[in-house]
Amino acid sequence: MRRFAPLPRPAMTAFLARLIAHPRTERFILVLILLNAVTLGLETDASVMARHGDLLHLVDKLILAVFVLELLAKMWVQRLRFFRDAWNLFDFFVVGIALVPSTGPLTVLRALRVLRVLRLITILPSLKRVVGALLGALPGMGSIVLLLGLIFYVGAVMATKLFGGAFPEWFGSIGASLYTLFQIMTLESWSMGIVRPVMEVYPLAWLYFVPFILATSFTALNLFIGVVVNAMQSEIQADREAAVEAAVERGEEPLVAEVRALREEVLSLRSALSTAARGD
Amino acid sequence: MRRFAPLPRPAMTAFLARLIAHPRTERFILVLILLNAVTLGLETDASVMARHGDLLHLVDKLILAVFVLELLAKMWVQRLRFFRDAWNLFDFFVVGIALVPSTGPLTVLRALRVLRVLRLITILPSLKRVVGALLGALPGMGSIVLLLGLIFYVGAVMATKLFGGAFPEWFGSIGASLYTLFQIMTLESWSMGIVRPVMEVYPLAWLYFVPFILATSFTALNLFIGVVVNAMQSEIQADREAAVEAAVERGEEPLVAEVRALREEVLSLRSALSTAARGD
Amino acid sequence: MRRFAPLPRPAMTAFLARLIAHPRTERFILVLILLNAVTLGLETDASVMARHGDLLHLVDKLILAVFVLELLAKMWVQRLRFFRDAWNLFDFFVVGIALVPSTGPLTVLRALRVLRVLRLITILPSLKRVVGALLGALPGMGSIVLLLGLIFYVGAVMATKLFGGAFPEWFGSIGASLYTLFQIMTLESWSMGIVRPVMEVYPLAWLYFVPFILATSFTALNLFIGVVVNAMQSEIQADREAAVEAAVERGEEPLVAEVRALREEVLSLRSALSTAARGD
Amino acid sequence: MRRFAPLPRPAMTAFLARLIAHPRTERFILVLILLNAVTLGLETDASVMARHGDLLHLVDKLILAVFVLELLAKMWVQRLRFFRDAWNLFDFFVVGIALVPSTGPLTVLRALRVLRVLRLITILPSLKRVVGALLGALPGMGSIVLLLGLIFYVGAVMATKLFGGAFPEWFGSIGASLYTLFQIMTLESWSMGIVRPVMEVYPLAWLYFVPFILATSFTALNLFIGVVVNAMQSEIQADREAAVEAAVERGEEPLVAEVRALREEVLSLRSALSTAARGD
Repeated sequence: MRRFAPLPRPAMTAFLARLIAHPRTERFILVLILLNAVTLGLETDASVMARHGDLLHLVDKLILAVFVLELLAKMWVQRLRFFRDAWNLFDFFVVGIALVPSTGPLTVLRALRVLRVLRLITILPSLKRVVGALLGALPGMGSIVLLLGLIFYVGAVMATKLFGGAFPEWFGSIGASLYTLFQIMTLESWSMGIVRPVMEVYPLAWLYFVPFILATSFTALNLFIGVVVNAMQSEIQADREAAVEAAVERGEEPLVAEVRALREEVLSLRSALSTAARGD
Repeated sequence: MRRFAPLPRPAMTAFLARLIAHPRTERFILVLILLNAVTLGLETDASVMARHGDLLHLVDKLILAVFVLELLAKMWVQRLRFFRDAWNLFDFFVVGIALVPSTGPLTVLRALRVLRVLRLITILPSLKRVVGALLGALPGMGSIVLLLGLIFYVGAVMATKLFGGAFPEWFGSIGASLYTLFQIMTLESWSMGIVRPVMEVYPLAWLYFVPFILATSFTALNLFIGVVVNAMQSEIQADREAAVEAAVERGEEPLVAEVRALREEVLSLRSALSTAARGD
Repeated sequence: MRRFAPLPRPAMTAFLARLIAHPRTERFILVLILLNAVTLGLETDASVMARHGDLLHLVDKLILAVFVLELLAKMWVQRLRFFRDAWNLFDFFVVGIALVPSTGPLTVLRALRVLRVLRLITILPSLKRVVGALLGALPGMGSIVLLLGLIFYVGAVMATKLFGGAFPEWFGSIGASLYTLFQIMTLESWSMGIVRPVMEVYPLAWLYFVPFILATSFTALNLFIGVVVNAMQSEIQADREAAVEAAVERGEEPLVAEVRALREEVLSLRSALSTAARGD
Repeated sequence: MRRFAPLPRPAMTAFLARLIAHPRTERFILVLILLNAVTLGLETDASVMARHGDLLHLVDKLILAVFVLELLAKMWVQRLRFFRDAWNLFDFFVVGIALVPSTGPLTVLRALRVLRVLRLITILPSLKRVVGALLGALPGMGSIVLLLGLIFYVGAVMATKLFGGAFPEWFGSIGASLYTLFQIMTLESWSMGIVRPVMEVYPLAWLYFVPFILATSFTALNLFIGVVVNAMQSEIQADREAAVEAAVERGEEPLVAEVRALREEVLSLRSALSTAARGD
């Protein structure tokens, strides 16, 4: 499929462009991603690794090599345009992780190699569209996310000052408070786990936590409503446009044309009449 | 109600077709299902079983026999068409469970016999419609469910690699991780139960779990929004069509006809005028 | 305000009808309900009861007497119609509780006396409207509530048979199973509290619980969507009607009248023309 | 930027009015708020405070002084109008907290100083709009919030009477009951944490708690639906108005004008005709 004999540059570019755009290549990459998902999953099983570890690593390296070559081919063809497409950057990032030496403190990177399977999103158009739509909903939520962030920051500073001394594990620093407040916003064990113990030391602590829950729930609710209303609005918009087109097809738009034609008819009738009257 | 004297085949088929379609048969089956629901419920009570166990088993067997005969009659009448209807397959499956010998490892099948009560869904049209609508909403959710599945798989492989060593009970295998991540997505004890203990070993574990919660919540939220918007859209569609019909009734559609008639009137007026002029 | 000298019956009825419909009476009852809410609340405080218990009981009895007299007056005036109005039955029930002797096993009725405060709903039109709207949404949910009930019943029988032996506290009877399944549907401690302990005995228990959670959540979600869509639909309906009225005001409806008048004009023009032609 | 030489009063007012309305002043205040957010955050860190505590306090006091001067300037310019604007009162309140001596029992006020960071809301128009919209949704929810409050009050009195004796920590007083019922409404540990222990003493307690959960969830759900429908309705309203405008642009509104012009044309045609006929 690939030949290594030196080609003239433009011919090479044209060949690669055809190759990476070919449906069969896409299907091949798709199969490799799925195969890689399986091998990466099997690598978590100790007994499988004991018997077939070498084979799995070999397959993984081969697949990685194909992905790297594919990305290099794309870069060769697209040049700097390559880095302007967010999906390319995503592929570049999730494939690139495996090339960073994952030794010492970076051993966590080994777990991140499985992110490569997320390339399914870039290769399946339906998933790409869904993720694009999800991310597209984010900018419209900017102000309310900023507001939520502000409430969290102010709430975390207050909680650290108020309860940090007595409950260092939950409210010892702004970071700890932010995490605990996030837990409280998700309503997980907020009362039995956090607020009741706190109220044993500070009986009025509910004056802080209940308003916090109400404020964040209400804000998150409105965030949610905003997204629903936006989605609905574009649906209704599309729907209305379809209705207008249908009206045009049903002949409501031509009505104006009809009336105009009628008026011209009457005008010509009048001029004919006055001609006849003058001709008398 | 049933006679066992041999009937000529077509006559037999016609008789059975009339029988199974008869409203009284449907009502009889409905009563049997409800009765069976009661007996299956009573079977869970030890003291009732001690006194009336034999009677309950007898009633259960009789009802099962009627159900089997009803299904056989349907098969006789509908032949292969029987297996093309999903509701028939459902009935076939939930009735058939009771005929599999439930001994040894299959003793769990005894508990599945109660699924027979779900035949209420196939026999009550309102329930059938509701379940049909619920299942009908699923295909439109395909891409986003696939995305959620992808996030879960990648998340489970990562969690197994990252935390499997220290917390084998929660993240020891991909299966265990998938279950734990499902629990975390439902927000049940995610922090006090899982993430805080994990953070005692890996202090940065929140960098994995908080984004996971945000991503799955946001995706599930959008799944939800998609279903709402779809439902709403079909409502609005139906509503708009009703509005168009109402407009037709109110005479907005005839307006075009009216204008056309008017134009013809003017045309005939003009020809009359020119005739008159020429006739001068 | 009330006189006990015997009145002729019709005059008495007329007097009572005017009395109970009088805005000042309504305001008086409203004040009594609020006052009663306060006294019933104070009755829960031991130290207040020690000092002012007698006074509180006296006030409570006086208010109760007024409520009873009010209801009797309403019954006198409305006769059997009284019992046809659901709100009257509600008032009758919550006031009547206090008249049942609450001794022995019925001591719990003493706590139910506070339900009387719910009369606020019947006396404040805005609350009455809200509650009416809430209850009005219920019938449309009939099928799906029935489906949810069916899933719960079948699920409870299965859970009792499968897990009742090992976990009698949670699944020992159909009642216990129903309660536990309700808890699981609300997602409260479903995993750490119930399913993980169950899975230690039956490792495959998740095959029962995860589908149960998905099925009930999805059904409840659709219940919710149904209510939203219904509410939305009636809003859109009202909105559309308002739009039609606005169109009429803007003169779109008169358009038809205008065109008809125009046509008559042309018709009379033609007849005038033909008269003129004949008159030539 | 400020000069202290006495100015004639109107000149002073004009100068201050220009100063506080100047974009550069707004930007300066914005930077100060963000800087203050950082210093207030750093104050929660013990090690930072040990090294730079004095500097942080100094910066905090300087920023506070600027805020006070800004508010005084606004008051000077706007006089009593200042207190009619809710946002001004908000600024006045969150800045004023720092001026109250926070000693003895008021030491909690020190933690409230961070509320000053919420001035971001008043200074960023997008946040101001979002918060305004959130608060604007509240009045429409009046009745249903009142209903929820009524259910909570009646529920708390009942719970105190029914379970207060055996569970003083959870239901010992109306306040404790209200808090516990709020926890139950959020579904946090309602069953494993509260209701199961209660049911060990009062086996029928679920008859109180399950209806309470259903009622409050259903009411809260309707509260939510109300907000969604309201938001949606105003969207649809805006949408419809846009559609009408578009119709006008597309020439559907002129249709009426067109038809009227046409009618006048026909009228003049008739008068011309009758003139011609008479002129004969």
